[in-house]
Amino acid sequence: MTGMATPFTVTRRVEFGDTDMAGIMHFANFFRFMEVAETAFLRARGLSVAWTDAGVGYGFPRVSAACDFEKPLRFEDEATIAVTLEKVGAKSLSYRFEFSRDGQPIAVGRMSSVYCRKGPGGTIEPLEIPPAIRAKLEA
Amino acid sequence: MTGMATPFTVTRRVEFGDTDMAGIMHFANFFRFMEVAETAFLRARGLSVAWTDAGVGYGFPRVSAACDFEKPLRFEDEATIAVTLEKVGAKSLSYRFEFSRDGQPIAVGRMSSVYCRKGPGGTIEPLEIPPAIRAKLEA
Amino acid sequence: MTGMATPFTVTRRVEFGDTDMAGIMHFANFFRFMEVAETAFLRARGLSVAWTDAGVGYGFPRVSAACDFEKPLRFEDEATIAVTLEKVGAKSLSYRFEFSRDGQPIAVGRMSSVYCRKGPGGTIEPLEIPPAIRAKLEA
Amino acid sequence: MTGMATPFTVTRRVEFGDTDMAGIMHFANFFRFMEVAETAFLRARGLSVAWTDAGVGYGFPRVSAACDFEKPLRFEDEATIAVTLEKVGAKSLSYRFEFSRDGQPIAVGRMSSVYCRKGPGGTIEPLEIPPAIRAKLEA
Repeated sequence: MTGMATPFTVTRRVEFGDTDMAGIMHFANFFRFMEVAETAFLRARGLSVAWTDAGVGYGFPRVSAACDFEKPLRFEDEATIAVTLEKVGAKSLSYRFEFSRDGQPIAVGRMSSVYCRKGPGGTIEPLEIPPAIRAKLEA
Repeated sequence: MTGMATPFTVTRRVEFGDTDMAGIMHFANFFRFMEVAETAFLRARGLSVAWTDAGVGYGFPRVSAACDFEKPLRFEDEATIAVTLEKVGAKSLSYRFEFSRDGQPIAVGRMSSVYCRKGPGGTIEPLEIPPAIRAKLEA
Repeated sequence: MTGMATPFTVTRRVEFGDTDMAGIMHFANFFRFMEVAETAFLRARGLSVAWTDAGVGYGFPRVSAACDFEKPLRFEDEATIAVTLEKVGAKSLSYRFEFSRDGQPIAVGRMSSVYCRKGPGGTIEPLEIPPAIRAKLEA
Repeated sequence: MTGMATPFTVTRRVEFGDTDMAGIMHFANFFRFMEVAETAFLRARGLSVAWTDAGVGYGFPRVSAACDFEKPLRFEDEATIAVTLEKVGAKSLSYRFEFSRDGQPIAVGRMSSVYCRKGPGGTIEPLEIPPAIRAKLEA
Protein backbone atom coordinates (compact mmCIF):
# COMPACT_ATOMS: atom_id res chain seq x y z
CA MET A 1 0.00 0.00 0.00
CA THR A 2 1.30 3.34 -0.92
CA GLY A 3 0.60 6.50 0.98
CA MET A 4 0.07 10.01 -0.18
CA ALA A 5 3.28 11.96 -0.22
CA THR A 6 3.31 14.99 2.06
CA PRO A 7 3.79 17.95 -0.23
CA PHE A 8 6.69 20.31 0.26
CA THR A 9 5.39 23.64 1.56
CA VAL A 10 6.74 27.13 1.94
CA THR A 11 5.09 30.19 3.43
CA ARG A 12 5.56 33.74 2.25
CA ARG A 13 4.06 36.98 3.42
CA VAL A 14 2.49 39.39 0.94
CA GLU A 15 4.54 42.57 1.12
CA PHE A 16 3.19 46.08 0.55
CA GLY A 17 5.04 46.28 -2.76
CA ASP A 18 3.42 43.01 -3.90
CA THR A 19 0.00 44.69 -3.99
CA ASP A 20 -1.53 46.85 -6.71
CA MET A 21 -4.08 49.65 -6.69
CA ALA A 22 -6.92 47.11 -6.56
CA GLY A 23 -5.71 46.44 -3.00
CA ILE A 24 -4.72 42.83 -3.67
CA MET A 25 -1.55 40.98 -4.67
CA HIS A 26 -0.77 41.76 -8.30
CA PHE A 27 -1.42 38.67 -10.40
CA ALA A 28 2.13 38.52 -11.80
CA ASN A 29 3.51 38.17 -8.28
CA PHE A 30 1.85 34.76 -7.92
CA PHE A 31 4.46 33.58 -10.42
CA ARG A 32 7.23 35.03 -8.24
CA PHE A 33 5.78 33.19 -5.25
CA MET A 34 5.72 30.00 -7.36
CA GLU A 35 9.41 30.53 -8.06
CA VAL A 36 10.13 30.96 -4.33
CA ALA A 37 8.47 27.59 -3.74
CA GLU A 38 10.18 25.95 -6.74
CA THR A 39 13.66 27.09 -5.73
CA ALA A 40 13.10 26.12 -2.08
CA PHE A 41 11.98 22.68 -3.28
CA LEU A 42 15.14 22.30 -5.38
CA ARG A 43 17.39 23.68 -2.62
CA ALA A 44 15.99 21.11 -0.17
CA ARG A 45 17.22 18.45 -2.62
CA GLY A 46 20.67 20.00 -3.11
CA LEU A 47 19.65 21.41 -6.50
CA SER A 48 18.98 24.83 -8.01
CA VAL A 49 17.38 26.52 -11.01
CA ALA A 50 20.70 27.87 -12.31
CA TRP A 51 24.30 26.97 -11.52
CA THR A 52 27.77 26.78 -13.01
CA ASP A 53 29.85 23.62 -13.20
CA ALA A 54 33.41 23.74 -14.54
CA GLY A 55 32.65 27.12 -16.09
CA VAL A 56 29.54 25.89 -17.90
CA GLY A 57 26.08 27.17 -17.01
CA TYR A 58 23.26 24.70 -16.32
CA GLY A 59 19.72 25.23 -15.20
CA PHE A 60 16.00 24.62 -15.45
CA PRO A 61 14.55 27.55 -17.44
CA ARG A 62 10.75 27.59 -17.49
CA VAL A 63 8.98 26.72 -20.71
CA SER A 64 5.46 27.30 -19.45
CA ALA A 65 3.70 28.78 -16.44
CA ALA A 66 0.03 29.13 -15.58
CA CYS A 67 -2.12 30.13 -12.65
CA ASP A 68 -5.84 30.05 -11.83
CA PHE A 69 -6.77 32.66 -9.26
CA GLU A 70 -9.71 31.77 -7.00
CA LYS A 71 -9.41 34.31 -4.19
CA PRO A 72 -7.17 37.31 -3.72
CA LEU A 73 -4.25 37.67 -1.35
CA ARG A 74 -3.86 40.93 0.58
CA PHE A 75 -1.04 42.83 2.27
CA GLU A 76 0.40 40.90 5.22
CA ASP A 77 -1.42 37.69 4.33
CA GLU A 78 0.72 34.62 4.94
CA ALA A 79 0.38 32.43 1.88
CA THR A 80 1.19 28.73 2.08
CA ILE A 81 2.40 27.21 -1.18
CA ALA A 82 2.38 23.43 -1.46
CA VAL A 83 4.70 22.17 -4.22
CA THR A 84 4.20 18.85 -5.98
CA LEU A 85 6.67 17.69 -8.62
CA GLU A 86 4.07 15.98 -10.80
CA LYS A 87 6.33 14.64 -13.51
CA VAL A 88 10.02 14.14 -14.16
CA GLY A 89 10.32 13.63 -17.90
CA ALA A 90 13.40 12.82 -19.97
CA LYS A 91 14.35 16.49 -20.13
CA SER A 92 11.58 18.34 -18.31
CA LEU A 93 9.92 18.88 -14.94
CA SER A 94 6.27 19.67 -14.25
CA TYR A 95 5.24 21.29 -10.98
CA ARG A 96 1.91 22.01 -9.35
CA PHE A 97 1.58 24.77 -6.74
CA GLU A 98 -1.41 25.05 -4.41
CA PHE A 99 -1.75 28.42 -2.73
CA SER A 100 -3.76 28.65 0.46
CA ARG A 101 -4.26 31.04 3.37
CA ASP A 102 -5.42 29.69 6.72
CA GLY A 103 -6.37 26.46 4.94
CA GLN A 104 -8.55 28.25 2.39
CA PRO A 105 -7.70 27.65 -1.30
CA ILE A 106 -6.42 30.78 -3.05
CA ALA A 107 -4.88 29.75 -6.37
CA VAL A 108 -3.44 26.81 -8.28
CA GLY A 109 -0.33 27.21 -10.40
CA ARG A 110 1.58 25.03 -12.81
CA MET A 111 5.05 25.34 -14.24
CA SER A 112 7.22 23.30 -16.57
CA SER A 113 10.96 23.65 -16.93
CA VAL A 114 13.58 21.99 -19.11
CA TYR A 115 17.08 20.93 -18.13
CA CYS A 116 19.48 23.03 -20.20
CA ARG A 117 23.12 23.81 -20.74
CA LYS A 118 24.23 27.26 -21.78
CA GLY A 119 26.35 27.16 -24.88
CA PRO A 120 28.74 29.74 -26.28
CA GLY A 121 27.09 32.97 -27.41
CA GLY A 122 24.22 32.60 -24.97
CA THR A 123 22.56 29.65 -26.70
CA ILE A 124 20.44 27.41 -24.50
CA GLU A 125 20.53 23.69 -25.26
CA PRO A 126 18.01 21.20 -23.78
CA LEU A 127 19.57 18.01 -22.41
CA GLU A 128 18.43 14.77 -20.84
CA ILE A 129 18.34 15.07 -17.07
CA PRO A 130 21.43 13.21 -15.78
CA PRO A 131 20.85 10.26 -13.40
CA ALA A 132 22.48 12.07 -10.46
CA ILE A 133 20.06 14.98 -10.74
CA ARG A 134 17.10 12.69 -11.40
CA ALA A 135 17.90 10.73 -8.24
CA LYS A 136 17.83 13.90 -6.15
CA LEU A 137 14.56 15.05 -7.72
CA GLU A 138 12.88 11.72 -7.04
CA ALA A 139 14.27 11.36 -3.51
CA MET B 1 -16.83 40.83 -47.25
CA THR B 2 -14.98 39.53 -44.29
CA GLY B 3 -11.42 40.34 -43.54
CA MET B 4 -8.97 39.14 -41.00
CA ALA B 5 -8.93 41.55 -38.10
CA THR B 6 -5.60 43.29 -37.69
CA PRO B 7 -4.52 42.49 -34.15
CA PHE B 8 -3.83 45.30 -31.74
CA THR B 9 -0.08 45.49 -31.10
CA VAL B 10 2.17 47.18 -28.60
CA THR B 11 5.95 47.18 -28.40
CA ARG B 12 7.98 47.24 -25.22
CA ARG B 13 11.69 47.18 -24.63
CA VAL B 14 13.22 44.72 -22.18
CA GLU B 15 14.83 46.80 -19.45
CA PHE B 16 17.92 45.83 -17.48
CA GLY B 17 15.81 45.23 -14.38
CA ASP B 18 13.53 42.87 -16.35
CA THR B 19 16.38 40.36 -16.73
CA ASP B 20 17.58 37.75 -14.26
CA MET B 21 20.95 36.11 -13.62
CA ALA B 22 20.33 33.69 -16.51
CA GLY B 23 20.78 36.76 -18.74
CA ILE B 24 17.24 36.68 -20.11
CA MET B 25 13.92 38.30 -19.24
CA HIS B 26 12.60 36.76 -16.04
CA PHE B 27 9.60 34.58 -16.85
CA ALA B 28 7.24 36.46 -14.49
CA ASN B 29 7.84 39.67 -16.44
CA PHE B 30 6.13 38.19 -19.50
CA PHE B 31 2.93 38.53 -17.47
CA ARG B 32 3.71 42.20 -16.80
CA PHE B 33 4.23 42.71 -20.54
CA MET B 34 0.88 40.97 -21.15
CA GLU B 35 -0.71 43.47 -18.78
CA VAL B 36 0.89 46.38 -20.65
CA ALA B 37 -0.71 45.06 -23.85
CA GLU B 38 -4.07 44.33 -22.15
CA THR B 39 -4.35 47.80 -20.60
CA ALA B 40 -3.29 49.50 -23.85
CA PHE B 41 -5.95 47.48 -25.68
CA LEU B 42 -8.61 48.59 -23.18
CA ARG B 43 -7.38 52.22 -23.17
CA ALA B 44 -7.68 52.33 -26.97
CA ARG B 45 -11.37 51.46 -26.48
CA GLY B 46 -11.97 54.00 -23.72
CA LEU B 47 -11.85 51.30 -21.04
CA SER B 48 -9.55 50.26 -18.22
CA VAL B 49 -8.76 47.36 -15.88
CA ALA B 50 -9.83 49.30 -12.78
CA TRP B 51 -11.85 52.47 -12.33
CA THR B 52 -14.24 54.22 -9.96
CA ASP B 53 -17.73 55.34 -10.91
CA ALA B 54 -19.86 57.28 -8.43
CA GLY B 55 -17.57 56.15 -5.64
CA VAL B 56 -17.85 52.46 -6.54
CA GLY B 57 -14.87 50.48 -7.83
CA TYR B 58 -15.19 48.43 -11.01
CA GLY B 59 -12.65 46.42 -12.94
CA PHE B 60 -11.53 43.31 -14.74
CA PRO B 61 -9.44 41.31 -12.24
CA ARG B 62 -7.68 38.33 -13.81
CA VAL B 63 -8.91 34.84 -13.00
CA SER B 64 -6.28 32.97 -14.99
CA ALA B 65 -3.03 33.65 -16.81
CA ALA B 66 -0.69 31.36 -18.72
CA CYS B 67 2.33 31.63 -20.97
CA ASP B 68 4.33 29.25 -23.15
CA PHE B 69 7.90 30.41 -23.62
CA GLU B 70 9.53 29.43 -26.91
CA LYS B 71 12.57 31.70 -27.07
CA PRO B 72 14.07 34.09 -24.55
CA LEU B 73 14.01 37.88 -24.64
CA ARG B 74 17.19 39.74 -23.72
CA PHE B 75 18.10 43.22 -22.44
CA GLU B 76 17.19 45.93 -24.96
CA ASP B 77 15.15 43.58 -27.14
CA GLU B 78 12.05 45.26 -28.54
CA ALA B 79 9.19 42.83 -28.03
CA THR B 80 6.03 43.15 -30.09
CA ILE B 81 2.90 41.89 -28.37
CA ALA B 82 -0.16 41.25 -30.53
CA VAL B 83 -3.39 41.18 -28.50
CA THR B 84 -6.49 39.31 -29.61
CA LEU B 85 -9.66 39.45 -27.53
CA GLU B 86 -10.72 35.89 -28.27
CA LYS B 87 -13.96 35.81 -26.35
CA VAL B 88 -16.35 38.20 -24.65
CA GLY B 89 -18.49 36.05 -22.37
CA ALA B 90 -21.42 37.08 -20.19
CA LYS B 91 -19.07 38.15 -17.40
CA SER B 92 -15.58 37.35 -18.65
CA LEU B 93 -12.94 38.22 -21.24
CA SER B 94 -10.35 35.90 -22.78
CA TYR B 95 -7.22 37.32 -24.37
CA ARG B 96 -4.42 35.83 -26.44
CA PHE B 97 -1.00 37.51 -26.57
CA GLU B 98 1.59 36.68 -29.22
CA PHE B 99 5.09 37.86 -28.38
CA SER B 100 7.57 38.30 -31.21
CA ARG B 101 10.91 39.99 -31.85
CA ASP B 102 11.81 41.01 -35.39
CA GLY B 103 8.98 38.78 -36.62
CA GLN B 104 10.29 35.73 -34.77
CA PRO B 105 7.85 34.03 -32.35
CA ILE B 106 8.94 34.31 -28.72
CA ALA B 107 6.01 33.34 -26.51
CA VAL B 108 2.23 32.92 -26.45
CA GLY B 109 0.20 34.06 -23.47
CA ARG B 110 -3.41 33.79 -22.43
CA MET B 111 -5.38 35.64 -19.79
CA SER B 112 -8.97 35.65 -18.58
CA SER B 113 -10.58 38.36 -16.53
CA VAL B 114 -14.01 38.85 -15.01
CA TYR B 115 -16.04 42.04 -14.81
CA CYS B 116 -16.41 42.88 -11.12
CA ARG B 117 -17.72 45.48 -8.73
CA LYS B 118 -15.99 46.10 -5.42
CA GLY B 119 -18.40 45.82 -2.54
CA PRO B 120 -18.09 47.09 1.02
CA GLY B 121 -15.30 45.51 3.05
CA GLY B 122 -13.22 44.76 -0.02
CA THR B 123 -15.48 42.04 -1.41
CA ILE B 124 -15.29 41.49 -5.17
CA GLU B 125 -18.56 40.65 -6.92
CA PRO B 126 -18.67 39.30 -10.53
CA LEU B 127 -21.27 40.99 -12.73
CA GLU B 128 -22.61 40.68 -16.26
CA ILE B 129 -20.72 42.98 -18.59
CA PRO B 130 -23.04 45.96 -19.27
CA PRO B 131 -24.02 46.63 -22.91
CA ALA B 132 -22.13 49.93 -23.03
CA ILE B 133 -18.85 48.22 -22.08
CA ARG B 134 -19.57 45.24 -24.34
CA ALA B 135 -20.09 47.58 -27.29
CA LYS B 136 -16.69 49.19 -26.72
CA LEU B 137 -14.97 45.81 -26.37
CA GLU B 138 -16.49 44.54 -29.61
CA ALA B 139 -15.89 47.74 -31.56
CA MET C 1 23.54 52.95 32.96
CA THR C 2 22.15 53.07 29.51
CA GLY C 3 22.84 50.47 26.90
CA MET C 4 22.79 50.51 23.19
CA ALA C 5 19.41 49.54 21.84
CA THR C 6 19.42 46.22 20.02
CA PRO C 7 18.27 47.02 16.50
CA PHE C 8 15.26 45.28 15.06
CA THR C 9 16.41 42.80 12.41
CA VAL C 10 14.80 40.80 9.64
CA THR C 11 16.36 38.30 7.28
CA ARG C 12 15.34 37.78 3.69
CA ARG C 13 16.67 35.46 1.04
CA VAL C 14 17.59 36.78 -2.40
CA GLU C 15 15.27 35.03 -4.85
CA PHE C 16 16.15 34.15 -8.43
CA GLY C 17 13.79 36.83 -9.70
CA ASP C 18 15.54 39.44 -7.52
CA THR C 19 18.71 39.14 -9.60
CA ASP C 20 19.55 40.79 -12.92
CA MET C 21 21.77 39.80 -15.83
CA ALA C 22 24.83 41.07 -13.95
CA GLY C 23 24.28 38.05 -11.67
CA ILE C 24 23.57 40.14 -8.56
CA MET C 25 20.49 41.51 -6.82
CA HIS C 26 19.06 44.34 -8.90
CA PHE C 27 19.68 47.64 -7.12
CA ALA C 28 15.98 48.60 -7.01
CA ASN C 29 15.22 45.46 -5.00
CA PHE C 30 17.27 46.79 -2.07
CA PHE C 31 14.42 49.28 -1.63
CA ARG C 32 11.90 46.43 -1.58
CA PHE C 33 14.00 44.69 1.07
CA MET C 34 14.04 47.97 3.05
CA GLU C 35 10.24 48.00 2.87
CA VAL C 36 10.10 44.42 4.15
CA ALA C 37 12.16 45.51 7.16
CA GLU C 38 10.16 48.74 7.64
CA THR C 39 6.79 46.99 7.59
CA ALA C 40 8.02 44.20 9.90
CA PHE C 41 9.28 46.89 12.30
CA LEU C 42 5.88 48.62 12.26
CA ARG C 43 3.97 45.33 12.53
CA ALA C 44 5.99 44.38 15.63
CA ARG C 45 4.66 47.62 17.19
CA GLY C 46 1.05 47.04 16.14
CA LEU C 47 1.36 49.55 13.31
CA SER C 48 1.42 49.48 9.52
CA VAL C 49 2.35 51.58 6.49
CA ALA C 50 -1.26 51.82 5.28
CA TRP C 51 -4.56 51.14 7.00
CA THR C 52 -8.19 52.20 7.09
CA ASP C 53 -9.94 53.54 10.18
CA ALA C 54 -13.67 54.34 10.06
CA GLY C 55 -13.53 54.33 6.29
CA VAL C 56 -10.62 56.79 6.12
CA GLY C 57 -7.20 55.78 4.80
CA TYR C 58 -4.08 56.52 6.84
CA GLY C 59 -0.48 55.64 6.28
CA PHE C 60 3.18 56.52 6.13
CA PRO C 61 3.99 57.16 2.44
CA ARG C 62 7.70 57.57 1.79
CA VAL C 63 9.03 61.01 0.93
CA SER C 64 12.63 59.97 0.37
CA ALA C 65 14.68 56.82 0.04
CA ALA C 66 18.39 56.28 -0.52
CA CYS C 67 20.86 53.42 -0.53
CA ASP C 68 24.65 53.10 -0.70
CA PHE C 69 25.73 49.77 -2.13
CA GLU C 70 29.05 48.43 -0.86
CA LYS C 71 28.96 44.78 -1.91
CA PRO C 72 26.52 42.83 -4.04
CA LEU C 73 24.00 40.26 -2.89
CA ARG C 74 23.60 37.09 -4.95
CA PHE C 75 20.92 34.46 -5.50
CA GLU C 76 20.16 32.52 -2.30
CA ASP C 77 22.14 34.90 -0.09
CA GLU C 78 20.44 35.46 3.25
CA ALA C 79 20.52 39.19 3.88
CA THR C 80 20.12 40.54 7.39
CA ILE C 81 18.56 43.99 7.59
CA ALA C 82 18.90 45.91 10.85
CA VAL C 83 16.33 48.68 11.19
CA THR C 84 16.86 51.75 13.34
CA LEU C 85 14.15 54.37 13.68
CA GLU C 86 16.52 57.31 13.89
CA LYS C 87 14.01 60.10 14.31
CA VAL C 88 10.34 60.54 15.09
CA GLY C 89 9.47 64.08 14.02
CA ALA C 90 6.21 65.95 14.37
CA LYS C 91 4.88 64.41 11.17
CA SER C 92 7.71 62.25 9.84
CA LEU C 93 9.81 59.16 10.51
CA SER C 94 13.45 58.58 9.50
CA TYR C 95 14.79 55.05 9.25
CA ARG C 96 18.26 53.61 8.76
CA PHE C 97 18.73 50.10 7.32
CA GLU C 98 21.99 48.20 7.56
CA PHE C 99 22.26 45.26 5.19
CA SER C 100 24.74 42.51 6.00
CA ARG C 101 25.45 38.93 4.99
CA ASP C 102 27.24 36.66 7.42
CA GLY C 103 28.23 39.72 9.41
CA GLN C 104 29.78 41.44 6.40
CA PRO C 105 28.41 44.93 5.53
CA ILE C 106 26.56 45.00 2.21
CA ALA C 107 24.62 48.25 1.99
CA VAL C 108 23.19 51.10 4.05
CA GLY C 109 19.77 52.51 3.29
CA ARG C 110 17.72 55.42 4.57
CA MET C 111 14.06 56.22 4.24
CA SER C 112 11.75 58.97 5.44
CA SER C 113 8.00 58.76 5.57
CA VAL C 114 5.25 61.17 6.57
CA TYR C 115 2.08 60.41 8.48
CA CYS C 116 -0.82 61.11 6.13
CA ARG C 117 -4.55 60.89 5.79
CA LYS C 118 -6.15 60.21 2.44
CA GLY C 119 -8.73 62.82 1.57
CA PRO C 120 -11.55 62.70 -0.95
CA GLY C 121 -10.45 62.47 -4.57
CA GLY C 122 -7.21 60.74 -3.69
CA THR C 123 -5.54 63.72 -2.04
CA ILE C 124 -2.88 62.94 0.56
CA GLU C 125 -2.74 65.24 3.57
CA PRO C 126 0.23 65.25 6.02
CA LEU C 127 -0.76 65.26 9.68
CA GLU C 128 0.93 65.39 13.07
CA ILE C 129 1.60 61.89 14.36
CA PRO C 130 -1.04 61.24 17.05
CA PRO C 131 0.21 60.45 20.59
CA ALA C 132 -1.10 56.87 20.47
CA ILE C 133 0.95 56.09 17.36
CA ARG C 134 3.96 57.98 18.68
CA ALA C 135 3.88 55.92 21.86
CA LYS C 136 3.96 52.67 19.89
CA LEU C 137 6.81 53.92 17.69
CA GLU C 138 8.90 54.92 20.68
CA ALA C 139 8.16 51.78 22.70
CA MET D 1 29.83 81.01 -25.55
CA THR D 2 28.16 78.73 -23.14
CA GLY D 3 24.67 77.42 -23.50
CA MET D 4 22.43 75.44 -21.29
CA ALA D 5 22.47 71.83 -22.35
CA THR D 6 19.05 70.46 -23.23
CA PRO D 7 18.58 67.51 -20.91
CA PHE D 8 17.97 64.06 -22.34
CA THR D 9 14.38 63.03 -21.64
CA VAL D 10 12.38 59.84 -21.75
CA THR D 11 8.71 59.28 -21.06
CA ARG D 12 7.21 56.21 -19.47
CA ARG D 13 3.67 55.34 -18.58
CA VAL D 14 2.81 54.05 -15.11
CA GLU D 15 1.46 50.55 -15.57
CA PHE D 16 -1.17 48.91 -13.39
CA GLY D 17 1.45 46.61 -11.90
CA ASP D 18 3.62 49.62 -10.98
CA THR D 19 1.02 50.76 -8.44
CA ASP D 20 0.50 49.57 -4.88
CA MET D 21 -2.55 49.38 -2.61
CA ALA D 22 -2.16 53.07 -1.75
CA GLY D 23 -3.27 53.68 -5.36
CA ILE D 24 0.01 55.31 -6.41
CA MET D 25 3.23 54.16 -8.04
CA HIS D 26 5.21 52.09 -5.53
CA PHE D 27 8.24 54.07 -4.40
CA ALA D 28 10.74 51.39 -5.47
CA ASN D 29 9.51 51.67 -9.06
CA PHE D 30 10.86 55.21 -9.27
CA PHE D 31 14.30 53.57 -9.25
CA ARG D 32 13.26 51.31 -12.13
CA PHE D 33 12.10 54.37 -14.06
CA MET D 34 15.46 56.02 -13.30
CA GLU D 35 17.16 52.97 -14.79
CA VAL D 36 14.99 53.21 -17.92
CA ALA D 37 16.18 56.81 -18.34
CA GLU D 38 19.81 55.94 -17.51
CA THR D 39 20.00 53.08 -20.01
CA ALA D 40 18.26 55.14 -22.73
CA PHE D 41 20.80 57.92 -22.10
CA LEU D 42 23.69 55.46 -22.46
CA ARG D 43 22.13 53.75 -25.51
CA ALA D 44 21.80 57.12 -27.25
CA ARG D 45 25.59 57.44 -26.85
CA GLY D 46 26.36 53.92 -28.07
CA LEU D 47 26.95 52.71 -24.52
CA SER D 48 25.24 50.40 -22.04
CA VAL D 49 25.14 49.50 -18.34
CA ALA D 50 26.47 45.96 -18.95
CA TRP D 51 28.21 44.38 -21.93
CA THR D 52 30.76 41.75 -22.88
CA ASP D 53 33.94 42.45 -24.84
CA ALA D 54 36.21 39.58 -25.87
CA GLY D 55 34.51 37.35 -23.32
CA VAL D 56 35.02 39.81 -20.45
CA GLY D 57 32.09 41.53 -18.75
CA TYR D 58 32.10 45.30 -18.29
CA GLY D 59 29.51 47.66 -16.92
CA PHE D 60 28.43 50.50 -14.70
CA PRO D 61 26.98 48.93 -11.53
CA ARG D 62 25.31 51.46 -9.24
CA VAL D 63 27.00 52.38 -5.98
CA SER D 64 24.29 54.70 -4.72
CA ALA D 65 20.74 55.71 -5.57
CA ALA D 66 18.38 58.18 -3.94
CA CYS D 67 15.02 59.75 -4.64
CA ASP D 68 12.95 62.55 -3.10
CA PHE D 69 9.24 62.11 -3.76
CA GLU D 70 7.22 65.31 -3.99
CA LYS D 71 3.98 64.17 -5.60
CA PRO D 72 2.67 60.73 -6.45
CA LEU D 73 2.33 59.16 -9.88
CA ARG D 74 -0.84 57.21 -10.66
CA PHE D 75 -1.87 54.46 -13.09
CA GLU D 76 -1.66 55.63 -16.72
CA ASP D 77 0.23 58.80 -15.85
CA GLU D 78 2.89 59.62 -18.43
CA ALA D 79 6.03 60.52 -16.51
CA THR D 80 8.76 62.54 -18.15
CA ILE D 81 12.24 61.86 -16.81
CA ALA D 82 14.97 64.38 -17.63
CA VAL D 83 18.46 62.91 -17.23
CA THR D 84 21.52 65.04 -16.52
CA LEU D 85 24.96 63.44 -16.29
CA GLU D 86 26.23 65.77 -13.59
CA LYS D 87 29.76 64.41 -13.22
CA VAL D 88 32.11 62.08 -15.04
CA GLY D 89 34.79 61.19 -12.51
CA ALA D 90 37.91 59.10 -12.96
CA LYS D 91 35.94 55.89 -12.39
CA SER D 92 32.39 57.00 -11.65
CA LEU D 93 29.31 58.69 -13.10
CA SER D 94 26.75 60.81 -11.24
CA TYR D 95 23.28 61.30 -12.68
CA ARG D 96 20.35 63.51 -11.75
CA PHE D 97 16.80 62.55 -12.77
CA GLU D 98 13.92 65.02 -12.71
CA PHE D 99 10.50 63.41 -12.85
CA SER D 100 7.57 65.51 -14.02
CA ARG D 101 4.03 65.01 -15.28
CA ASP D 102 2.47 67.63 -17.52
CA GLY D 103 5.25 70.00 -16.49
CA GLN D 104 4.58 69.54 -12.79
CA PRO D 105 7.53 68.36 -10.64
CA ILE D 106 7.02 64.87 -9.20
CA ALA D 107 10.36 63.61 -7.88
CA VAL D 108 14.11 64.11 -8.09
CA GLY D 109 16.47 61.16 -8.21
CA ARG D 110 20.20 60.71 -8.10
CA MET D 111 22.37 57.76 -8.97
CA SER D 112 26.09 57.04 -9.04
CA SER D 113 27.72 54.17 -10.87
CA VAL D 114 31.28 52.94 -11.21
CA TYR D 115 32.98 51.57 -14.32
CA CYS D 116 33.84 47.94 -13.57
CA ARG D 117 35.25 44.81 -15.10
CA LYS D 118 34.01 41.41 -13.99
CA GLY D 119 36.85 39.19 -12.90
CA PRO D 120 36.98 35.41 -12.51
CA GLY D 121 34.73 34.01 -9.80
CA GLY D 122 32.28 36.88 -10.09
CA THR D 123 34.55 39.55 -8.61
CA ILE D 124 33.83 43.11 -9.66
CA GLU D 125 36.85 45.37 -10.17
CA PRO D 126 36.53 49.20 -10.47
CA LEU D 127 38.57 50.69 -13.33
CA GLU D 128 39.35 54.12 -14.74
CA ILE D 129 36.88 55.02 -17.46
CA PRO D 130 38.76 54.54 -20.77
CA PRO D 131 39.08 57.60 -23.07
CA ALA D 132 36.85 56.08 -25.76
CA ILE D 133 33.97 55.66 -23.32
CA ARG D 134 34.62 59.05 -21.72
CA ALA D 135 34.43 60.71 -25.13
CA LYS D 136 31.01 59.15 -25.79
CA LEU D 137 29.73 60.16 -22.35
CA GLU D 138 30.83 63.76 -22.81
CA ALA D 139 29.60 64.05 -26.40
